Amino acid sequence: MTKPALLLWPGRWSAWFGDAFDDRFEVLRFSEAEELEALLDARGSEVVAALTNRLDAATIDRLPRLRLIAVPGAGYDAVDVAAARARQIMVANAGDTHSDAVAEHAVALALAAIHRLPEMQARVLDGRWGPTEPRRSVAAQRFGIVGLGNIGRAIARRIEPFGAQIAWWGPREKPEAPWPRHESLLDLARWCTALVVSARGDAAGLVDAETIAAVGPDGLIVNVSRGRVLDEDALIAALRSGGLGWAALDVFAEEPTPAARWRDVPNVVLTPHVSPVTREATSQLREAAVRNLLSVLDGGPVVNEIVHDHARLV
Amino acid sequence: MTKPALLLWPGRWSAWFGDAFDDRFEVLRFSEAEELEALLDARGSEVVAALTNRLDAATIDRLPRLRLIAVPGAGYDAVDVAAARARQIMVANAGDTHSDAVAEHAVALALAAIHRLPEMQARVLDGRWGPTEPRRSVAAQRFGIVGLGNIGRAIARRIEPFGAQIAWWGPREKPEAPWPRHESLLDLARWCTALVVSARGDAAGLVDAETIAAVGPDGLIVNVSRGRVLDEDALIAALRSGGLGWAALDVFAEEPTPAARWRDVPNVVLTPHVSPVTREATSQLREAAVRNLLSVLDGGPVVNEIVHDHARLV
Repeated sequence: MTKPALLLWPGRWSAWFGDAFDDRFEVLRFSEAEELEALLDARGSEVVAALTNRLDAATIDRLPRLRLIAVPGAGYDAVDVAAARARQIMVANAGDTHSDAVAEHAVALALAAIHRLPEMQARVLDGRWGPTEPRRSVAAQRFGIVGLGNIGRAIARRIEPFGAQIAWWGPREKPEAPWPRHESLLDLARWCTALVVSARGDAAGLVDAETIAAVGPDGLIVNVSRGRVLDEDALIAALRSGGLGWAALDVFAEEPTPAARWRDVPNVVLTPHVSPVTREATSQLREAAVRNLLSVLDGGPVVNEIVHDHARLV
Repeated sequence: MTKPALLLWPGRWSAWFGDAFDDRFEVLRFSEAEELEALLDARGSEVVAALTNRLDAATIDRLPRLRLIAVPGAGYDAVDVAAARARQIMVANAGDTHSDAVAEHAVALALAAIHRLPEMQARVLDGRWGPTEPRRSVAAQRFGIVGLGNIGRAIARRIEPFGAQIAWWGPREKPEAPWPRHESLLDLARWCTALVVSARGDAAGLVDAETIAAVGPDGLIVNVSRGRVLDEDALIAALRSGGLGWAALDVFAEEPTPAARWRDVPNVVLTPHVSPVTREATSQLREAAVRNLLSVLDGGPVVNEIVHDHARLV
């Protein structure tokens, strides 16, 4: 008897999932977009489930038996949820398993920039010990959180014991939030010394050149949302000109980001989109995806189903 | 009329204090130990106050009119307090002005190591984007604080909202501490995944090779105390052999630490003894030192006087 087919894309997820599906599925792995065409032609009609964070309407059209798109993470902004729902294909993500991991990473990035760790490490390794300009303490910072979802709240709670001021902006009022909301993103950017972007990934262009300039020469921008949320060209220009003090980024306009784009940009802390990648979060999201994928075979329930499209901003 | 003389050593403190003393004191600055001899011969008898964090008994002997040693920081372990007190010379430090700054830095170092920021930054800048071994989350760590003074407590309070487990060891019981105390440092080292050393600076050799081995191949050691508290040769050997996972150090056995000593040591986060150096702490310690130095001229009170020698361990 032929096993039902599971489409796994991109292939780098394979390492995390090992042989978790091999008993029940025939796993079709592909890593390069070019391989997809051939695969869809030959096997598209066998695919009942996809483990992926990117699937457009045209690809969905070529998978007539598809019943579930399991996203092994939080971001499903590259999955055409509307196209899937029009065919009653379920879309499920990893739920909130990774919010704390991303929040931790945002705080680690912010502290590394405020404490100028790359510069300080270079001083030790280059033998340039000596007096340095005192840093501004974390306690004296004003943190502006952009997007007070699960991640934004988890960031704020971790910053609180440092004694820093905290405020936020998002498109909707949240009366239960213990931190004040500013009237606009620009107002928050003018007020804060550290702008931490944890907005939803579909808020393209939200942090524009004017917002970056408002954070200013002594200010820091941290981004753990998606690269497109921020005008990266404007950010790089501001870092070069001194119009922005520091940037700490886990996400980029293009990923992988070209190394040459960053090599001579001053005052950056950069990580290759690893904020959710902890042993603990990875294990939880793997379990959630495995459970959903096996459940859908048996006609069982699916957890963390996405029932709205991603029109909400933050 | 000749102004009384203030001995300022080492000269790097000068930049922080500017001309704050010039109205009332003639400031004798020297940066190299070799200059001291000539200065003591020529002017030692005029010195009524010293702004320094290092003054041995022999030097104190050559300053017959010395009334106050003002330490512009917390650590006075290189000041011979017993010799000073035998002559009724007051010793005062900056009190607790910088505990929060040091605690912040300890947390920044710990997060940078746990999130492997130097490796991640190198991956982006070298174009080596790609799957990485998931990090262990901060939430899953067990933090062992060595020395639960003001700094140790401030570290623990900042780690708490991450959800990590916290315990500590110090030579004396502290029944009011909200975190459990381990029976011994070795016991704490065996239990923890991240050993954070905030012990008093005179606890030389406290973190020895056996303690380092107990922290182990997946473990992290953070030191914001003094370099001598830790067996640095054993630490470097353990990092090289994989016997210790990571080290994040702001203090070194010798300062400046020779750059060549660290260049090929893996998995380190290094900063050049800057943990207390924030604009806010610098400003507070400057004010405290200025106030004490002017007060002693006028026969007024001195704050933050050290009345015990430094025999207490942690």
